Amino acid sequence: MAKEKNFVESITDMEVDFPQWYTDVVKKADLIDYSSIKGCMIIRPYGYAIWELIQKQLDEKFKETGHENVYMPMFIPESLLQKEKDHVEGFAPEVAWVTHGGENELPERLCVRPTSETLFCDHYKNIIQSYRDLPKLYNQWCSVVRWEKTTRPFLRTTEFLWQEGHTAHATAEESQEETIKMLNVYADFCTNVLSIPVVKGEKTAKERFAGAKNTYTIESLMHDGKALQSGTSHNFGDGFAKAFGIQYTDKENKLQYVHQTSWGMTTRLIGAIIMVHGDNSGLVLPPLVAPIQLVIIPIAQKKAGVLEKASELKERLGKVARVKLDDTDKSPGWKFSEYEMKGVPVRLEVGPKDIENNQVVLVRRDTGEKTVVSMDNLEESVTALLKDIQSNLLNKATERRDENTNVATNLEEFEKILNEKSGFVKAMWCGDRACEDKIKELTSATSRCIPFEQEELSDTCVCCGEKAKHMVYWGKAY
Amino acid sequence: MAKEKNFVESITDMEVDFPQWYTDVVKKADLIDYSSIKGCMIIRPYGYAIWELIQKQLDEKFKETGHENVYMPMFIPESLLQKEKDHVEGFAPEVAWVTHGGENELPERLCVRPTSETLFCDHYKNIIQSYRDLPKLYNQWCSVVRWEKTTRPFLRTTEFLWQEGHTAHATAEESQEETIKMLNVYADFCTNVLSIPVVKGEKTAKERFAGAKNTYTIESLMHDGKALQSGTSHNFGDGFAKAFGIQYTDKENKLQYVHQTSWGMTTRLIGAIIMVHGDNSGLVLPPLVAPIQLVIIPIAQKKAGVLEKASELKERLGKVARVKLDDTDKSPGWKFSEYEMKGVPVRLEVGPKDIENNQVVLVRRDTGEKTVVSMDNLEESVTALLKDIQSNLLNKATERRDENTNVATNLEEFEKILNEKSGFVKAMWCGDRACEDKIKELTSATSRCIPFEQEELSDTCVCCGEKAKHMVYWGKAY
Repeated sequence: MAKEKNFVESITDMEVDFPQWYTDVVKKADLIDYSSIKGCMIIRPYGYAIWELIQKQLDEKFKETGHENVYMPMFIPESLLQKEKDHVEGFAPEVAWVTHGGENELPERLCVRPTSETLFCDHYKNIIQSYRDLPKLYNQWCSVVRWEKTTRPFLRTTEFLWQEGHTAHATAEESQEETIKMLNVYADFCTNVLSIPVVKGEKTAKERFAGAKNTYTIESLMHDGKALQSGTSHNFGDGFAKAFGIQYTDKENKLQYVHQTSWGMTTRLIGAIIMVHGDNSGLVLPPLVAPIQLVIIPIAQKKAGVLEKASELKERLGKVARVKLDDTDKSPGWKFSEYEMKGVPVRLEVGPKDIENNQVVLVRRDTGEKTVVSMDNLEESVTALLKDIQSNLLNKATERRDENTNVATNLEEFEKILNEKSGFVKAMWCGDRACEDKIKELTSATSRCIPFEQEELSDTCVCCGEKAKHMVYWGKAY
Repeated sequence: MAKEKNFVESITDMEVDFPQWYTDVVKKADLIDYSSIKGCMIIRPYGYAIWELIQKQLDEKFKETGHENVYMPMFIPESLLQKEKDHVEGFAPEVAWVTHGGENELPERLCVRPTSETLFCDHYKNIIQSYRDLPKLYNQWCSVVRWEKTTRPFLRTTEFLWQEGHTAHATAEESQEETIKMLNVYADFCTNVLSIPVVKGEKTAKERFAGAKNTYTIESLMHDGKALQSGTSHNFGDGFAKAFGIQYTDKENKLQYVHQTSWGMTTRLIGAIIMVHGDNSGLVLPPLVAPIQLVIIPIAQKKAGVLEKASELKERLGKVARVKLDDTDKSPGWKFSEYEMKGVPVRLEVGPKDIENNQVVLVRRDTGEKTVVSMDNLEESVTALLKDIQSNLLNKATERRDENTNVATNLEEFEKILNEKSGFVKAMWCGDRACEDKIKELTSATSRCIPFEQEELSDTCVCCGEKAKHMVYWGKAY
């Protein structure tokens, strides 16, 4: 038998050392490799295939909602980045600067885009003249660079892949509507495609995007009780339009400023999938983003007829799912572990006895449950099983999230929750930045969002005891 | 009526000033906008939609031939770029250098990738150990940067979008086979999807890719008689493997170097489409890469029933083609010009009289031919028409290419052809670099390729009169 990779070695226990478990999974599931550039990862075929599935399904949603894709340059001249005051303050400290082109020093430094608001504004100024040119609903798929001090694969990398939507509208109402619409697209995508439940809400002023009037977010909870900001949608009002002079002539022939939004999701979503669904056998993928939805493992494959039957099943099931047949000479046990590590939703085992009985064994990755099913209507069984796994993963994640969401009405409770159980803390807040800062200092938790679904937990701020304005989700965050 | 853009203004005559015609088309067909970064263009929605269609169809071919997509960092440390001597000499003079991350100077300069051989090699060294790990058939979709002195939209830009395939094989035979296989994928794609005929062949040593053992190319001929290198495929042998130490253990347990290839196609293909098929009314798109394959223009659209019928047709035809209905209040004449400029393959006109007669008018963009067809089997008519346009464009381009391909047996003929008619010149060559240099000096033509289909035009080199080794295609090139 072949020399087998030590792939089936057990990974670190997630309850013992969650960060190490995470690192083990991204490496052993062949999602990434480290590169020789600090903080930049290599996304390997299996990891990239997950991203392609995310991209395809998100892109369809963007197009259904009337958006068009464009491509902007990857460089931003320093003077352009500086046009909007808050924006440059937020981003300048973390950009990469290009100073030389070939042998020559450039007359002006260019930064590698950390985000492209300034480029879109510069373009919109050229192409928007009349109300007839509005709205502009653009999106871009690309990579961006932010010079991060500490990095982790998918969660925080110097370069990452993302999409950034940038839109321009005639009125404040329209830009607000767009901002919320795209937040809902994100929330639906996480829930229905990634099986990740999210809390929708608004960021506090402290946590707002640099230059935004309002920032909305979807927040999810990882297995270790930490929160992950999974997508954001910003309403800029007319702030950028004023800084860049983006004006249009309205129906009464008056000059008006446009109102803008932007919204983005990144390869960080792959980190969320790992940390929400993964277990001590490795990755667990929701079927809708699984590059392989079902793997066929022949048992006693040297026996007559086994490989033929396995190929026949691959052919049949390939019409309803993404199927791989592993007929290499590795042992079935090794293969079981490998595809568990890779999070393949369903394993199909077929051997001589199964063939005799016109049956196969299906094993679910999410529960480990084995069922023996007839070969006759296998297409239906597999389709139903994948659907069930997709929704079971959402249910499990929602239960875990809810179990790890607790209410605090004073600071002692707040600290106790985060020390003992971690997770989300729901607590009332007066609206003052000082209380946010104090909570962070005491507990290292930040405000995750002011959720759209408000609850009156008490009348007073969990920190200062003054009159409460909002119920807020708090948590330690990635 | 609305104030109409001056979109229908005639563009520059292509026979009078081809470069200006080209610039007019890319702007007026809304393919690009200029950006404030020298040499970088903005690809607008209509241009990007063409790229998405190219990408989708090429990517399918790559996957069918067993390739997997990955994503490498956009930065290359200077020391990594320098590992292969010829490669760094070829690229270092034209890269953009990042020297600062945030506030700090970097310990080592990073260049923005001009191509990613060095990154793939660095990764392959980590992941290839045994013959079982081979072949590696990877591809990447991304943008690259080359600091160009003179730039033109799509044809030569500082940043451009492309795909770069990078593969590693056990033997020299396998890497050679892969190199040719991918050249053939490119040639088929140009011929069958873009309707652009190509000459397949090998580059001379002078025109080889920096670091390659052999470079193969597909060359196409533009409307102005200039050649365009449309795709290249390189066999590196084990040169990079030796520079980077990429070794594997073979079946006899001996250490061997891998053999590598790379191959790429870029947004330049959009420039080729414009310059091969375009005319004095603007862009002409082959149906397979047309974002809109058929545009419906209602005539007398305020008359009862016209818009209803137009919508009904859109619904029906939307099932067999990419269809747009333009029911804006602009005049039909204006719309005709606009969609001609945008190169939409088929225009469908429907007015009250047509409805009365259960017919529509179909107008082909490639020939201007109008036909009246019954509404009854419109799906079939449109499908057949699109197919016919696709092949007619190829036939026309092939005829034009052949008409503009001439034979020279001495330097006087060579110069005469390029002065009077331009186009490809077929001529024999001794194999000496000195003759290539002399021809370039005299005529500004370069060797385009040593075609696979060789012809014996004479026994002697067109330049020096010594014994000829190869028949070569020559031409002035973009």
